[in-house]
Amino acid sequence: MSTTPEEKKAARAKFEAVFPVIADEILDYMKGEGMPAEALEWMNKNLYYNTPGGKLNRGLSVVDTYILLSPSGKDISEEEYLKAAILGWCIELLQAYFLVADDMMDASITRRGQPCWYKVEGVSNIAINDAFMLEGAIYFLLKKHFRKESYYVDLLELFHDVTFQTELGQLIDLLTAPEDHVDLDKFSLNKHHLIVVYKTAFYSFYLPVALAMRMVGVTDDEAYKLALSILIPMGEYFQVQDDVLDAFAPPEILGKIGTDILDNKCSWPINLALSLASPAQREILDTSYGQKNSEAEARVKALYAELDIQGKFNAYEQQSYESLNKLIDSIDEEKSGLKKEVFHSFLGKVYKRSK
Amino acid sequence: MSTTPEEKKAARAKFEAVFPVIADEILDYMKGEGMPAEALEWMNKNLYYNTPGGKLNRGLSVVDTYILLSPSGKDISEEEYLKAAILGWCIELLQAYFLVADDMMDASITRRGQPCWYKVEGVSNIAINDAFMLEGAIYFLLKKHFRKESYYVDLLELFHDVTFQTELGQLIDLLTAPEDHVDLDKFSLNKHHLIVVYKTAFYSFYLPVALAMRMVGVTDDEAYKLALSILIPMGEYFQVQDDVLDAFAPPEILGKIGTDILDNKCSWPINLALSLASPAQREILDTSYGQKNSEAEARVKALYAELDIQGKFNAYEQQSYESLNKLIDSIDEEKSGLKKEVFHSFLGKVYKRSK
Repeated sequence: MSTTPEEKKAARAKFEAVFPVIADEILDYMKGEGMPAEALEWMNKNLYYNTPGGKLNRGLSVVDTYILLSPSGKDISEEEYLKAAILGWCIELLQAYFLVADDMMDASITRRGQPCWYKVEGVSNIAINDAFMLEGAIYFLLKKHFRKESYYVDLLELFHDVTFQTELGQLIDLLTAPEDHVDLDKFSLNKHHLIVVYKTAFYSFYLPVALAMRMVGVTDDEAYKLALSILIPMGEYFQVQDDVLDAFAPPEILGKIGTDILDNKCSWPINLALSLASPAQREILDTSYGQKNSEAEARVKALYAELDIQGKFNAYEQQSYESLNKLIDSIDEEKSGLKKEVFHSFLGKVYKRSK
Repeated sequence: MSTTPEEKKAARAKFEAVFPVIADEILDYMKGEGMPAEALEWMNKNLYYNTPGGKLNRGLSVVDTYILLSPSGKDISEEEYLKAAILGWCIELLQAYFLVADDMMDASITRRGQPCWYKVEGVSNIAINDAFMLEGAIYFLLKKHFRKESYYVDLLELFHDVTFQTELGQLIDLLTAPEDHVDLDKFSLNKHHLIVVYKTAFYSFYLPVALAMRMVGVTDDEAYKLALSILIPMGEYFQVQDDVLDAFAPPEILGKIGTDILDNKCSWPINLALSLASPAQREILDTSYGQKNSEAEARVKALYAELDIQGKFNAYEQQSYESLNKLIDSIDEEKSGLKKEVFHSFLGKVYKRSK
């Protein structure tokens, strides 16, 4: 596992260098099918604009986890590295597919410091088909590189299952918190739990580890259930933290300005606040949440302070951290083929982060 | 194979009766995952609004082909029928996924005599995620019903491959013929060929037959290549015919009013006309095609008459029909496990159709 900043940077650069390889494979396939030049150029731009450029945490996690679980450790062959990295890029393609579409559904303007893809000149609703093709690229790559492996069908099922789960999470989110219609009666901590588990935890936490486990040869169903039982609550904790940072973190540290309150997001602070609010406080939330003005936003934030949402998060964080550590420490490494370090490392990256 | 109108009606009714079974399976899964009531209602409406209600030709073809290829013929068991029908519904789900998205990209207003899904009150861009979920339902159903079959992975690959091919076709179509920007320099008979083969022929002609072949136990790659070599040109012929009907068929027989000329579609008649036009005729096409007024449309139609596009289609049709028949008659049924009747039956449904 990379630990020093230099090692981390090198690991990232090595992973990033794989992207042109897979992009070329996709474009070569299209060329071989006789696709016209403008379709090749378009797909090239679609791939490069939407896939790299994020934090790449999910993709890098596949490689890191594979190295931790493999008997060869850091001495895995170049061929093995390439395959693990391709699985990592497949998650990044899945993420790109979701983000291109989510941005359209949320009517977002920017993503990763540039215009959202559908906002780029000449793209517009073609972005829907582009999202489809980013997803299609996953199965093209899996077929090309993993077809002969005994675990090929397991990889396919992992992507299918997790894709459907993420879409379910997105559906609940869209129905619960439409950007343009505030109805806090639809919110609840249970809804928030469902949204974050389905929309984020499966593909961001479980999928990278499960892919690496398949590649390293873990076949026991129980091991996957065990990994799931740790990574889903960890993903939920991560997203709760994300929501809290959006509301409370100083923008200069967070690197962006939180807009969840303005955008009527079904985030953890509002749901906790709703569960604690007196009728008078509820009235304030009903009239101020999801309104596109900073006075209303300030009233919500004042109420968060009154209800000590940050303090309650700190307690939640401590409790999550302890219970996750307990779960991790109870892993029987011999029996499961897992390593505690995989999970401790994930948790370590998340715990008490400030951005 | 059903032949009398009564038998056809009964076959269709039997197939339609399977849809509630698969819809319930999807909804039961969601219920089991603890999804809120409004998400279940939404998915229910998404499934029923978008999946049945079309001609169901593709879905029914899987069942028909399976019956023709199976040694049991019409005496297949109820269990076999159900499985073939589920594969058929998986194609209909794939089609629903494409159509929901295509209607958004084409800014269409109605589909199958009702508003397009994204035009339904309260849906709008949520339709993007709904399209994703229609696709996701395919893999849920394949896993549930075919997981234990030796050909499971072949079914998954068929759907993956054909989905990506269809998306490629849609991409070329979107880039060649944007609804709001006419540039006939982008058109050509070769582009038309690529669009119809990729966007239509693979999923509408090859996929139903290939799925039935997998289910009946054909494993020889050569048999699939043979089927492809017949069904792709047949699908192209079908789409050329579709384009010609849009331009020339009387609306009272066609059941709809053709709008390809108004909508700047890259259809066969315009591409043939472009290949034959004198500079003066080309000028008329450049200024009249894809214009949203009936005078311009009439000028294009007059030019189609002048260039005898209908007559040239009749010759094309005759030639296609003969060469497809020759291809079909050259099938070695013993060696390939195929039946000529499968292909003759497809061709018979298409040849000289008037709607």
